[in-house]
Amino acid sequence: MLSVLVPRVGSWAVILPSVEWGAMTSPVSQWSLDAPLSAVPEAVHKVLSHYFEESSQEFSAIGREFDQAVSYLKDFVLLGGKRVRPMFAWAGLRAGLEGGGGSLSIPFPDDATVNPAALLTAVSALELIQACALIHDDIIDKSDTRRGHPTTHRRFESEHREKGWLGSSEHYGVSQAILTGDLALAWADDMLHDSGVSAQALGNVRIPWRAMRSEVIAGQILDVTVEANGSEDVEDSYKVMEYKTASYTVARPLHLGAALVGADEQVVELLRAVGHDVGVVFQLRDDQLGVFGDPSMTGKPSGDDLRTGKRTALINLALAQGTESDVDKLTKSLGTVQDEADIDVLREIIVRTGAAQAIEEEIQIRSRRAIDALQDSPLDAGIKTELTGLTEKLSNRKF
Amino acid sequence: MLSVLVPRVGSWAVILPSVEWGAMTSPVSQWSLDAPLSAVPEAVHKVLSHYFEESSQEFSAIGREFDQAVSYLKDFVLLGGKRVRPMFAWAGLRAGLEGGGGSLSIPFPDDATVNPAALLTAVSALELIQACALIHDDIIDKSDTRRGHPTTHRRFESEHREKGWLGSSEHYGVSQAILTGDLALAWADDMLHDSGVSAQALGNVRIPWRAMRSEVIAGQILDVTVEANGSEDVEDSYKVMEYKTASYTVARPLHLGAALVGADEQVVELLRAVGHDVGVVFQLRDDQLGVFGDPSMTGKPSGDDLRTGKRTALINLALAQGTESDVDKLTKSLGTVQDEADIDVLREIIVRTGAAQAIEEEIQIRSRRAIDALQDSPLDAGIKTELTGLTEKLSNRKF
Repeated sequence: MLSVLVPRVGSWAVILPSVEWGAMTSPVSQWSLDAPLSAVPEAVHKVLSHYFEESSQEFSAIGREFDQAVSYLKDFVLLGGKRVRPMFAWAGLRAGLEGGGGSLSIPFPDDATVNPAALLTAVSALELIQACALIHDDIIDKSDTRRGHPTTHRRFESEHREKGWLGSSEHYGVSQAILTGDLALAWADDMLHDSGVSAQALGNVRIPWRAMRSEVIAGQILDVTVEANGSEDVEDSYKVMEYKTASYTVARPLHLGAALVGADEQVVELLRAVGHDVGVVFQLRDDQLGVFGDPSMTGKPSGDDLRTGKRTALINLALAQGTESDVDKLTKSLGTVQDEADIDVLREIIVRTGAAQAIEEEIQIRSRRAIDALQDSPLDAGIKTELTGLTEKLSNRKF
Repeated sequence: MLSVLVPRVGSWAVILPSVEWGAMTSPVSQWSLDAPLSAVPEAVHKVLSHYFEESSQEFSAIGREFDQAVSYLKDFVLLGGKRVRPMFAWAGLRAGLEGGGGSLSIPFPDDATVNPAALLTAVSALELIQACALIHDDIIDKSDTRRGHPTTHRRFESEHREKGWLGSSEHYGVSQAILTGDLALAWADDMLHDSGVSAQALGNVRIPWRAMRSEVIAGQILDVTVEANGSEDVEDSYKVMEYKTASYTVARPLHLGAALVGADEQVVELLRAVGHDVGVVFQLRDDQLGVFGDPSMTGKPSGDDLRTGKRTALINLALAQGTESDVDKLTKSLGTVQDEADIDVLREIIVRTGAAQAIEEEIQIRSRRAIDALQDSPLDAGIKTELTGLTEKLSNRKF
């Protein structure tokens, strides 16, 4: 009689979960090594889309709850993103191959196995690190939307509410989104390591891969701390920018791409230095647009950073350099200002303190330094021109 | 004049963050390949301690905010833990070498480089996956303490409160703990890949490493879902147990260890099947102790699972098999019961439904099946005896 009480349902019958896995195939068979940087985003999108197709199938035995988290993650990854990090990694890789002392024999020791799409897959993995960073960031910032869509924790929260489930819908959303972000981070590593590049190439990327993940997390930890302790220190805003943007978004992706093909040490150093300047330029331009940007170009409200009270390098510099009455006025209005005329007053103050011009000057100095370094480098003309063009574009962008 | 306005502070002067890294060294130079399983926990503790020393130094340039997160993570990892997963991974590795068709030439192709401590480092990485899982789990469960110490999110929360910082202390704690868990997950990958084993060994562990991380996250997603939708389905409790415990805690670690030394495919299958049974036994015994355990042995309150209302396989089976009035009584009291006499009444009900005996029987069937499979295997006597002993111990444990 007792044996009938032993649960013979579902998983009791199945001794092993049938999760198995083989090497990833690629949807981008025509990808070429000299593909222009502008072609990277669309190709990365295809690779990511394919990765989710294969991974969903691989883990389909687990069941619909996991499928749903995977599909929310997939939506998040595929619905947007400028693919900036894979683009810089691709630039680093091309720099390595085009005058940088790297060789295709590093990722593909056997000539017969040369497979540019494997390199594209390796750099696409950066988008999964970014997915983790953003999904967790949205929880930290309590954001409702990203790129016009509900954030991941809000999607889970809505589902919980619609189904009338037990407990707090908000906490449920946060819980599932934490786990979904974790999955993205684990899969980022998997995507890199299963990309199809050689063990030597994987060994070469250990330093930038480890540094990049640790640095972006460090940047976020600093950011959360600075927001909590109310620091208005210019140094602190620079430090957050260095780790969260300059290093993670530009310098380390360039480093990673160059390492994949075994570029010379000096070229790696050059790319890191250039990348760091370009990354700071990118962020400082963002700070300028957050105060002075044209809403019809940026797609964000006029004076967005003034409305939210974000302590950017620009704003902290104005606070450090303003007269007592200007600082008073700024401090009182930051984060609360709504009216367009009041925003204009704050803009005038920021100009008057000299902060706007100082930041603009720094953007120009750093862009110039990056471009000069590229021009003086041993890199071939093609990649030099593309990287220079990208630097100018990021430096002068209006959106 | 303008140039003096350009911030020359801190990071502006430092163009590149000085984060660099070399191969990890090991503190366990005397580690031997036939070390008994019982020696693993202490050795793993040493390896982890050393890893944190090196990593703290490596990233010290980032500054005190990051140092603090690293030190909270270090405390979490070093203050406790039975090191069950590295122990099973070590068992898998020894099984591979002791009759399982594996060879030391897989992790160390060159005889001169044989380094048992590198294998120990590789299996120690499992503790960092576990740190991420637990730190995030504690946020999800809103736990205040773990192993007698404040949870990571509560530590950050207390600090925020003590310093009188801006915003919600609770949300600050959650935010920093999410990021600290992310760091643990990233470093788990780093620790494995920088352990010093060969590229071939790292290639071999791709399947168990990917599966293990995905499966534990899947198990947690299922767990959060089941708690929210109030499922009392025995099948659901089994599914959570399969992914979160059986696979992640026992079967995949055995698989990983065996893969590191290139064990035969049949031996890997055997270890996975045995591991799955042992993992279910481990969890079912936990469920029994959660209702019937002696508090002086378990260190937990008497009838802990009845007090918290946790829907274990045991309790769900009782709900599925009880008479209407027994189920009524159970449903009303689970999660609210406090009084020892009332707890005794629930225990009697669980016995009366046959659930307790059915679960006990399943524990015995699965332990027996695992032990028989080990005995019939081609493994050498030493590791057979150790794995059999461990299975018996886990099956009959009182705490």
